[in-house]
Amino acid sequence: MIKQMHVTGFMIYCPAPHMIMSWVYPREKIRHQWTDVEYWVEIAQTLERGKMDMFFFADGWGGGTNDASVRYAIQFPASDPVSLVPYLAAVTKKLGLAVTMSTTFYPPFMLARKLATLDHITKGRIGWNIVTSVSRGEARNFGMDDMPPHDERYDRADEYMEVVNKLWESWDDDALLMDMENGIFADPAKVHKIDHAGQYYNVQGPLTVTPSPQRKPYIFQAGASERGRDFAARHAECVFAVANNTQQMRSFCDDIATRAEKYGRDPGQIKIIWGAQPLVAHSHSEALARQQEIRARIPIEASLALLGGHLNYNLNTLDIDLPIADLNLKITGIQGMLEAAVKVDPNVTLRKMASTYLSGSDNGPMIGTAKQVADHMVYLMEEGGGDGFQITPSYYGPDYFADLNQMLIPELQRRGVFRTEYNGTTLRDYMNEDAPVRAAE
Amino acid sequence: MIKQMHVTGFMIYCPAPHMIMSWVYPREKIRHQWTDVEYWVEIAQTLERGKMDMFFFADGWGGGTNDASVRYAIQFPASDPVSLVPYLAAVTKKLGLAVTMSTTFYPPFMLARKLATLDHITKGRIGWNIVTSVSRGEARNFGMDDMPPHDERYDRADEYMEVVNKLWESWDDDALLMDMENGIFADPAKVHKIDHAGQYYNVQGPLTVTPSPQRKPYIFQAGASERGRDFAARHAECVFAVANNTQQMRSFCDDIATRAEKYGRDPGQIKIIWGAQPLVAHSHSEALARQQEIRARIPIEASLALLGGHLNYNLNTLDIDLPIADLNLKITGIQGMLEAAVKVDPNVTLRKMASTYLSGSDNGPMIGTAKQVADHMVYLMEEGGGDGFQITPSYYGPDYFADLNQMLIPELQRRGVFRTEYNGTTLRDYMNEDAPVRAAE
Repeated sequence: MIKQMHVTGFMIYCPAPHMIMSWVYPREKIRHQWTDVEYWVEIAQTLERGKMDMFFFADGWGGGTNDASVRYAIQFPASDPVSLVPYLAAVTKKLGLAVTMSTTFYPPFMLARKLATLDHITKGRIGWNIVTSVSRGEARNFGMDDMPPHDERYDRADEYMEVVNKLWESWDDDALLMDMENGIFADPAKVHKIDHAGQYYNVQGPLTVTPSPQRKPYIFQAGASERGRDFAARHAECVFAVANNTQQMRSFCDDIATRAEKYGRDPGQIKIIWGAQPLVAHSHSEALARQQEIRARIPIEASLALLGGHLNYNLNTLDIDLPIADLNLKITGIQGMLEAAVKVDPNVTLRKMASTYLSGSDNGPMIGTAKQVADHMVYLMEEGGGDGFQITPSYYGPDYFADLNQMLIPELQRRGVFRTEYNGTTLRDYMNEDAPVRAAE
Repeated sequence: MIKQMHVTGFMIYCPAPHMIMSWVYPREKIRHQWTDVEYWVEIAQTLERGKMDMFFFADGWGGGTNDASVRYAIQFPASDPVSLVPYLAAVTKKLGLAVTMSTTFYPPFMLARKLATLDHITKGRIGWNIVTSVSRGEARNFGMDDMPPHDERYDRADEYMEVVNKLWESWDDDALLMDMENGIFADPAKVHKIDHAGQYYNVQGPLTVTPSPQRKPYIFQAGASERGRDFAARHAECVFAVANNTQQMRSFCDDIATRAEKYGRDPGQIKIIWGAQPLVAHSHSEALARQQEIRARIPIEASLALLGGHLNYNLNTLDIDLPIADLNLKITGIQGMLEAAVKVDPNVTLRKMASTYLSGSDNGPMIGTAKQVADHMVYLMEEGGGDGFQITPSYYGPDYFADLNQMLIPELQRRGVFRTEYNGTTLRDYMNEDAPVRAAE
């Protein structure tokens, strides 16, 4: 059997998630503004019609706001996706729904209760993307002067996982009776306090939510650092990653597999999906023209604000036309991004780097006809490995995903690499048919 | 014009909110179990058909679990209402939706962002019931050994309100431009950091959510203590209270009015609504028989568990047939409940008190035909004062509220004391047509 691909919709609950200025669109074609819940309903229902695995929401807790990020809507403002997802559950039947929630900001009892409730409400369609949060701006919205050091965040997160797993297991399978004849609701001997007393957390329990369809949310993680990969290999059912070429993909997959084995886990049970932003049109030239049009409206200040946000550093005061190597920056932001860029091109400037960052220009083979893009997706899976793609729109979301449904999805289905009907009823069913019911223990 | 009454549905997201054992019901009449979201959808749509102001969810964060509370489902388990309400927003058009969120457990930035998001999603139908939380069991699910002392909780809550109000005001009215022609999303000069540095909270801001339809949630509070009433008079737009007779009602209303004036607020802008549990049937004898049937299935252990939960004290080890006065209890639980009971009857026992607690027996005039109950509700408003009733079901919620729609609501409408169509579109419109847009500053 041909290996199946997972394809998801990946966004932030904001005006322009991963393509700068994508909130700008011809007014006559805008049916709903992003501030209206109908905009998100239309996207969710479109993803479901396309049989995509899920709607996945990245998220952060603000901070790092500067004039450019407000003026151009650089991943700002951003509303709370945990409040949106139940609404989307009510207007879909099958689509998986995954939310990002931070172990630094949500108390573990609160998170465990919310996700168990959401698993009930969605009838088993909920996923959790674990983040430990990263930026000083976020910390300062939560009474801290700065984030805890990187490794401590992960130490805390390891214990956090222990706590939430205990809570999700605090009801035995046969504890709930709802015996109306004898007036017995549940068996007290089968509902357990957890009495967790650890280095970072003290939690009594039990969870106040009955066992939910998936029992635990399907678990995602996207750590790219050494410690983050280790955390993913230990706890995640699916790792979300970004890679620039098949070599990087292959080496990431191998690394996760090695680490998983260290924790006694079957690497085949850990899925890996890649961030992607295809731009599909009826002809290659139409797709390229579309890309030009999208890029032309991006001011350099906006690109710098996004890059600076991801680096957790204000780039505004720097000379953006000097080689980065000459700026003597002490930035160790996500994935050693600056170092990597300088390694590829010793003369690269911030202007050059910013202008190609999340503006589609390094996205060559993902731009073209459905056939061209499907060819490339299959090639990436075969040569690079992994299990599918998290797709984030480069223009007005409802139209972007409708275009994928019309062109790309049928092409993938014809090749037999993507489902034509949902397999099962839960997100865990879709992502991993062979998953043990309690995968993430 | 005859004074209008507010009528709401009041529940907890649990099997039996305010009538012990009300999860028991003839199986053939149960369309959805409380664990299914469809149960809550049916109730919400029923309330909306009845033109009720809102669906109001009380809530707590667990703890105090003992064998009896698990066995009989005494306000346990309880799922997260903040996760349910957006789903209910998707299946209703007009109904207000109010959730309880604790100032002790939600960080203020998190709460402000969630409620602003919910106000967008519901298009202005969200309300917030402010609680400071009370029980040791809850504290122990959040890493504390016990709750902060009562007055400190309210000091913190006062500052908390300052923080969330600043966040909800951190965008000027004209900050959001979404100017697609010129590519300007928002005016950075009109989106403000709040830089709050206080005794308990340090929060930078701005809020990452654009101004929502109501700008701020409609604010409820139910503090009964001295400090709680002061807090309500200062911050609440509507106070939710429980009273046993018209004298108590009148004195509560006067007290809130006096305190409101102290804070320079117009007492007319603070609504007061009363907890109630009418039992309506086609004849008085049918209603009484229904009440008998409901009470007969309540074990004394279950009543004691509920009373103990509300007193924040485990009553299991006490002699329940001795006069309470002889037990030498040091319980200062909600509203001096024990002292008040002993004052009324010096020989009262825990058995007697528990068996009449939330089991309908002191509910006399609220049990009968629609005409009898409507008479009593109008009498209470005229003699006791206040603005309406929070109604909590005594049996299977979907049928209970459908019965009210069929019998009680038309009776109130005939008398001209309850709306026949929703006035306006927001919860603030329904609760207070004269409210200033930014009422709770």
